[in-house]
Amino acid sequence: MEDLNACGEEEFLSRVGGIFEHSPWIARAVCAARPFASAGKLLDAMAEAVRASGEEAQLALIQAHPDLAGRLARQGQLTAESTKEQGAAGLSQADEAAISRINELNAAYQTRFGFPFIICARLNNVETIISAMERRLHNDAAGEKQTALEEIYKIARLRLADIVEG
Amino acid sequence: MEDLNACGEEEFLSRVGGIFEHSPWIARAVCAARPFASAGKLLDAMAEAVRASGEEAQLALIQAHPDLAGRLARQGQLTAESTKEQGAAGLSQADEAAISRINELNAAYQTRFGFPFIICARLNNVETIISAMERRLHNDAAGEKQTALEEIYKIARLRLADIVEG
Repeated sequence: MEDLNACGEEEFLSRVGGIFEHSPWIARAVCAARPFASAGKLLDAMAEAVRASGEEAQLALIQAHPDLAGRLARQGQLTAESTKEQGAAGLSQADEAAISRINELNAAYQTRFGFPFIICARLNNVETIISAMERRLHNDAAGEKQTALEEIYKIARLRLADIVEG
Repeated sequence: MEDLNACGEEEFLSRVGGIFEHSPWIARAVCAARPFASAGKLLDAMAEAVRASGEEAQLALIQAHPDLAGRLARQGQLTAESTKEQGAAGLSQADEAAISRINELNAAYQTRFGFPFIICARLNNVETIISAMERRLHNDAAGEKQTALEEIYKIARLRLADIVEG
């Protein structure tokens, strides 16, 4: 954390700009508020920046996430972080039936809510991901938006821990 | 799982009735639907029973949960499962400042939403619990109800895993 507190803005962005998928504006928003007492406090400030950013920016953040086991994963075009996370959940080794079920649920979810299904893959596996997709499809849009953001904070917290713990 | 599929209703309830805190009605609701192919499928059926039970039963389920680091914990009156989970999150060793902050946030949360703050303690620690409390206090009631239920499913899934894996 000392390095992250002391470095220039450019280095700060290059180191933690990616903990929110394709959304370096969140790191930029908190850069001037350094130093932070801990990685947790940095993450809290970033989550607060998301909360304060309003509906449109929050939806853009959610939409910046790739489909789980989707086209980008098949084409090897995920970010390094997402590749690692989807792998940790077992998605890269899942059988065809599971992948096709996930693709089908992704499509239904995207149609219903207008954004991709998001879950902290590292805290899940293929079975719990499919269960959560089936269950969360029944929810309403406002609730799912909140759940998506909460999962994004978990993803970011684990990505940040990887960075500060080496 | 074989034993859980084959045993009588009374034994089924005594073994899995507690995976949803003080809410054995959920195990009862799925008992006749046995056998289940896996623990995950049993949990999915229980989550579906909660979803189908309607608003009032869902709120009762949420309200059946104790405050984290609250009065029941101080008096040693939590269920065995909650004692273990709050301990795993480090709450039983937390310092006075953290406990009093959690109590203060519990009170604010209960006042705002009418139910206790719920989080899967085993997947968190004192710092992430306090962060989540501060953050989730800003949410609306419908979103928090959904988040509470999602956390309850995670708690139940881990409790069920403890039972079926020995």
